[in-house]
Amino acid sequence: MSGSHFGKNFTITTWGESHGPAIGAVVDGCPAGIPLSEDDIQHDLDRRKPGLSPYASQRGESDKAVILSGVFNGKTTGAPISVMIKNEDTRSADYSEIADVYRPGHADYTYDVKYGFRDYRGGGRSSGRETACRVAGGAVARRFLNELGVGIQAYVIAVGNTNVDMSRFDLTQAGLNPFYMPDKIAYEQASAETAAAMRGGDSLGGVVECVVKGALPGAGEPVFDKLPALLAHAVFSINAVKGFEIGEGFKAAKLTGAGNNDEMYYENGVLKKRSNHAGGVYGGIADGSDIVFRAAFKPTPSIAARQNAINADKENIKLSIKGRHDPLIVPRAVVVVEAMAALVLADLTLQGCVSNIENIKIRVNK
Amino acid sequence: MSGSHFGKNFTITTWGESHGPAIGAVVDGCPAGIPLSEDDIQHDLDRRKPGLSPYASQRGESDKAVILSGVFNGKTTGAPISVMIKNEDTRSADYSEIADVYRPGHADYTYDVKYGFRDYRGGGRSSGRETACRVAGGAVARRFLNELGVGIQAYVIAVGNTNVDMSRFDLTQAGLNPFYMPDKIAYEQASAETAAAMRGGDSLGGVVECVVKGALPGAGEPVFDKLPALLAHAVFSINAVKGFEIGEGFKAAKLTGAGNNDEMYYENGVLKKRSNHAGGVYGGIADGSDIVFRAAFKPTPSIAARQNAINADKENIKLSIKGRHDPLIVPRAVVVVEAMAALVLADLTLQGCVSNIENIKIRVNK
Amino acid sequence: MSGSHFGKNFTITTWGESHGPAIGAVVDGCPAGIPLSEDDIQHDLDRRKPGLSPYASQRGESDKAVILSGVFNGKTTGAPISVMIKNEDTRSADYSEIADVYRPGHADYTYDVKYGFRDYRGGGRSSGRETACRVAGGAVARRFLNELGVGIQAYVIAVGNTNVDMSRFDLTQAGLNPFYMPDKIAYEQASAETAAAMRGGDSLGGVVECVVKGALPGAGEPVFDKLPALLAHAVFSINAVKGFEIGEGFKAAKLTGAGNNDEMYYENGVLKKRSNHAGGVYGGIADGSDIVFRAAFKPTPSIAARQNAINADKENIKLSIKGRHDPLIVPRAVVVVEAMAALVLADLTLQGCVSNIENIKIRVNK
Amino acid sequence: MSGSHFGKNFTITTWGESHGPAIGAVVDGCPAGIPLSEDDIQHDLDRRKPGLSPYASQRGESDKAVILSGVFNGKTTGAPISVMIKNEDTRSADYSEIADVYRPGHADYTYDVKYGFRDYRGGGRSSGRETACRVAGGAVARRFLNELGVGIQAYVIAVGNTNVDMSRFDLTQAGLNPFYMPDKIAYEQASAETAAAMRGGDSLGGVVECVVKGALPGAGEPVFDKLPALLAHAVFSINAVKGFEIGEGFKAAKLTGAGNNDEMYYENGVLKKRSNHAGGVYGGIADGSDIVFRAAFKPTPSIAARQNAINADKENIKLSIKGRHDPLIVPRAVVVVEAMAALVLADLTLQGCVSNIENIKIRVNK
Repeated sequence: MSGSHFGKNFTITTWGESHGPAIGAVVDGCPAGIPLSEDDIQHDLDRRKPGLSPYASQRGESDKAVILSGVFNGKTTGAPISVMIKNEDTRSADYSEIADVYRPGHADYTYDVKYGFRDYRGGGRSSGRETACRVAGGAVARRFLNELGVGIQAYVIAVGNTNVDMSRFDLTQAGLNPFYMPDKIAYEQASAETAAAMRGGDSLGGVVECVVKGALPGAGEPVFDKLPALLAHAVFSINAVKGFEIGEGFKAAKLTGAGNNDEMYYENGVLKKRSNHAGGVYGGIADGSDIVFRAAFKPTPSIAARQNAINADKENIKLSIKGRHDPLIVPRAVVVVEAMAALVLADLTLQGCVSNIENIKIRVNK
Repeated sequence: MSGSHFGKNFTITTWGESHGPAIGAVVDGCPAGIPLSEDDIQHDLDRRKPGLSPYASQRGESDKAVILSGVFNGKTTGAPISVMIKNEDTRSADYSEIADVYRPGHADYTYDVKYGFRDYRGGGRSSGRETACRVAGGAVARRFLNELGVGIQAYVIAVGNTNVDMSRFDLTQAGLNPFYMPDKIAYEQASAETAAAMRGGDSLGGVVECVVKGALPGAGEPVFDKLPALLAHAVFSINAVKGFEIGEGFKAAKLTGAGNNDEMYYENGVLKKRSNHAGGVYGGIADGSDIVFRAAFKPTPSIAARQNAINADKENIKLSIKGRHDPLIVPRAVVVVEAMAALVLADLTLQGCVSNIENIKIRVNK
Repeated sequence: MSGSHFGKNFTITTWGESHGPAIGAVVDGCPAGIPLSEDDIQHDLDRRKPGLSPYASQRGESDKAVILSGVFNGKTTGAPISVMIKNEDTRSADYSEIADVYRPGHADYTYDVKYGFRDYRGGGRSSGRETACRVAGGAVARRFLNELGVGIQAYVIAVGNTNVDMSRFDLTQAGLNPFYMPDKIAYEQASAETAAAMRGGDSLGGVVECVVKGALPGAGEPVFDKLPALLAHAVFSINAVKGFEIGEGFKAAKLTGAGNNDEMYYENGVLKKRSNHAGGVYGGIADGSDIVFRAAFKPTPSIAARQNAINADKENIKLSIKGRHDPLIVPRAVVVVEAMAALVLADLTLQGCVSNIENIKIRVNK
Repeated sequence: MSGSHFGKNFTITTWGESHGPAIGAVVDGCPAGIPLSEDDIQHDLDRRKPGLSPYASQRGESDKAVILSGVFNGKTTGAPISVMIKNEDTRSADYSEIADVYRPGHADYTYDVKYGFRDYRGGGRSSGRETACRVAGGAVARRFLNELGVGIQAYVIAVGNTNVDMSRFDLTQAGLNPFYMPDKIAYEQASAETAAAMRGGDSLGGVVECVVKGALPGAGEPVFDKLPALLAHAVFSINAVKGFEIGEGFKAAKLTGAGNNDEMYYENGVLKKRSNHAGGVYGGIADGSDIVFRAAFKPTPSIAARQNAINADKENIKLSIKGRHDPLIVPRAVVVVEAMAALVLADLTLQGCVSNIENIKIRVNK
């Protein structure tokens, strides 16, 4: 289980179980001199908090971030930034009856196979709660990227069978509804679809889209560390993600070369593109235009409806999952997707978007 | 450009440009005692070779693999395995006229941004030719996995707007047509669609599906190194990939929890699953059932049709790409996808599918 | 400053400054099922604690380790183990007057060069206090190694100009004096030498020797990750280390091949060695005999005596360092050296001491 | 055996056995735009070549470096640089009689333990021949560092019991004798001592010192990746190294704080140091003054004199090693030590000597 570390130069390590005393993240490699406060982190954590909508888990966590190191007099020092979040509302009793049960669609069985043993309280390490640590670390990366003029925004474009209508696409709407959908009408439909699923003891999935603006030209390394490959890795490491695509994505497979190529041209000496089918990346390297990608989330496997399942005694059983679970996780995943994108871009920036000797000379000699 | 290394314990490093003297791969971390010959590697390289169908580039490479190290008396020694493939048919002259041109959909512009300089012959390092090295390394990983009973097979399920009809799905067909499509009728349609695109100076994309059988229960590390995250990274590092999904993938976003959960049950004491919507992975860890994933490839950007483009002198120009290019790259990508899957699984196996102290004791004390 | 992470499969990440709210370590990759308690960690932390001898810093820290994750029902779960130690006695006021001063022999100047900024309180990240985190992580590694029958013990063989007399070498003595010296008479001399240095406002260095018993045959990777190279890296990353040697070390340079080679022989079918000049390693790989290495520590740079120094205003100044500093750091380094050795061996064990396909098959199929 | 890769951003991977068809190195992460030719590499390889002195192995290798990738029109492109060296004079027959013998002081036994199998010809992967690949890679790193004004020079300060007399230290002498000793008289004594050892069928060790000038202030990462820790790792990964020290090294353990601290002062506004006991590094970070370190090499274990040994049939045998072996390896190690130092510094430079946000902004915006 040495998979809790991500990145090469700008790195994050997360720790903690859903129902232990606390969870946390250590961000290492962040340059010195960046203004950073607990509020910066809290702002993003609050966007992920359970309980924001009637369809999210009613677990009452304040999710208060505490910075334990790496910041002095309001600025990063270059030392690792340790952020801790206490687990406050951990009703372990809720979980005692599933200690020996392998819930369908969950990691219960595979964790037992791998470790011969598991912390069954709330999913332990496999709980979605771990993503709070990514959000905390991502907030640090985002502050760093802000200094370089890079902005990242994700939103929900599909919930169950409800899709955002691109003709109504309005980003300001995404900030006004708890589903982060940039289309008021789609939100209302999605809300109704979710309510219906909830009544049936069922759950829904959805799709998150993310746009990176002001992206650094040259970011991404050829061959194995292409920008889209690192983004795919990062985003696919979020619980429940089953698909990832960049630019046209799966739709590109149906286009022809002439239809999918992005024409570049100069207008009054300024480089422009007539389209951005590629999603801002060619040969794995950013060209500086918007990076656009999407992630598909499966429906939450924890459902109230009665299911067939098995237990550790190799018996077939019937199971109704109680406890506090989200019938719709996707809106809470929006800020997690942003966090993972920020971590990837911060890391690539430190690897050097531009990699020629003249640039190194400038940096070394300031 | 330190992105030419992949993996942690079972690793591959690739090198070489499309039009330099040779290309190659170094596989490090392969256990000792595995039978390995140049034929094992050649077999996979031949499946990737250009010139297999009338729609692939007519470049005449024999692509002969030579093992330079790591094998002694027919078995791996535990030392790095260096494989070299000479570039034979490198008509650099074909490329002189595009030395200053930024081709649409290509990495020409981004490489110049990043390096201030590029090897323009045949795309240099960004050429699809680099994937031959992955195939060579993947063949080594595959031999290792074979010893453990793991098999990997990919095939094409879509070319342009032609999809394999799942009711006609027949894997033996995939070995009988040059498109590796498991549906004879779909192949014939795809062939016609490709021929039409080619006549129009255009190109097509497609979708590759890959199945891993006998997959090791416990493979995959929680959190950042989940099996699907590593597969996504690996497969997305292949040129032209724009989408990746596992199990139901994007379709999962439209299912409900009840519809997407996989029921496990015991039948006469044997564990079974009623479905495999997840594609063989829960919480990022393999349960031992088939791993199923798909990759979407964009159409080749090199097309003969006249396009608008720019050059290094910041001029708007017209461009018709000559040279030898594939109107359809997807069939050649099949073995590349298998290779990347093999590299990921070999690496995870060495990290330890099962990670508990009793297993370590067994290993240490044999 | 992304240098706070160590290891590949069994890893440690440390965080925290000398005078922040807390310091800590995250151990990732530890196999599941190992009994582990806070007492196991506390036992080692107590051996490093300041205030154990009259010659160590009088800072009053209880250094109480708290395990925040990765342990459930008394056993490791395979999840990251987060250990936190609160900083209790942080009299930052002591340091305000040196905020702009570059102390001789300290990292003050180089941190300012690198980060343009530093946390001057007690050395911040460069403080020896960081080593408490290594001890905490090392205690986890040691518990793991204990399960495999590996034991690690370090002791002091030189303080200033006082050397342990090998003819009086007695390991039980090392446990009886606060200098951890395996020679009572040498300890008494060293004690007197230290008292004299302290009276003169000066400090002393020394040499720590470490022996690993029951070491796993096959541990160590050829070429760049040889066991001695990883040990050298690990031990040299401890503050104040200026030299590292294995087996005969620098003395080997003066021996001839015939004098330095270790003869192996069979006695009643049992493999034995007539000597262990190599310190248990050949070609970078352990043969299973004792691993023996030494580390030289420089004298603490913080001394009470008046010194010439400079400040951030580019002035030459006079400096007397106040605060709580150790005139002799070496005894406290003993457990830190053990910790780093344990971390290296735990990591190599997971990489696989034995690396052939038959061993992998056993592990995979249990 | 995944230990053939070194570095994080500027990396080297080596491959090849002593008696296979070829050996080689792949350097990845080298910035674009650096002038590089095969002559640059050959120059360093020639300094390592066997046969330069009467005391070195008489193996007749031309050791001709061929660059296979990563250089275009005389400059690095940012792509991996693959260098191959053919093995020409591989008289495997010499080794057939030791196929089942475990030579004292060699890696024969430990390789068999680890891999259950070995390439016995000339030591296979454990042969000193592997260091030619490091020299090739180091030459690339050196060219990069030259662009930044960094120079690296190593020389021999001890052979057996002969030490360079520092009062006669003269670097120009180091270029004039085959032992690279900066003291003519010491060279003559060492030469005589070596001749005597050779006559007795024995071998000698020695000590190499290395100085890095123009070293980049800020190079080195705190905690685990301190500059001396990385240098120790790098240098200790060279065959036969048994000790490493920086600055005063082991002697520092005998100094007091007052005697070992380096006073900094300003003279007409210019920062100076009254001494360099530290060897150019404080808190693991370079201050820009000379970096000075030393490595101790054991005597070559391959000696002609009759020794007791064992074989794979568990028999005690007598052994006289024939073949071509160096009674003194140290002079050939000089350029290998330089190469490893160059690789470490090139890597740290890319990680960013200076790590604050203002510097990153400059780099990103040029």
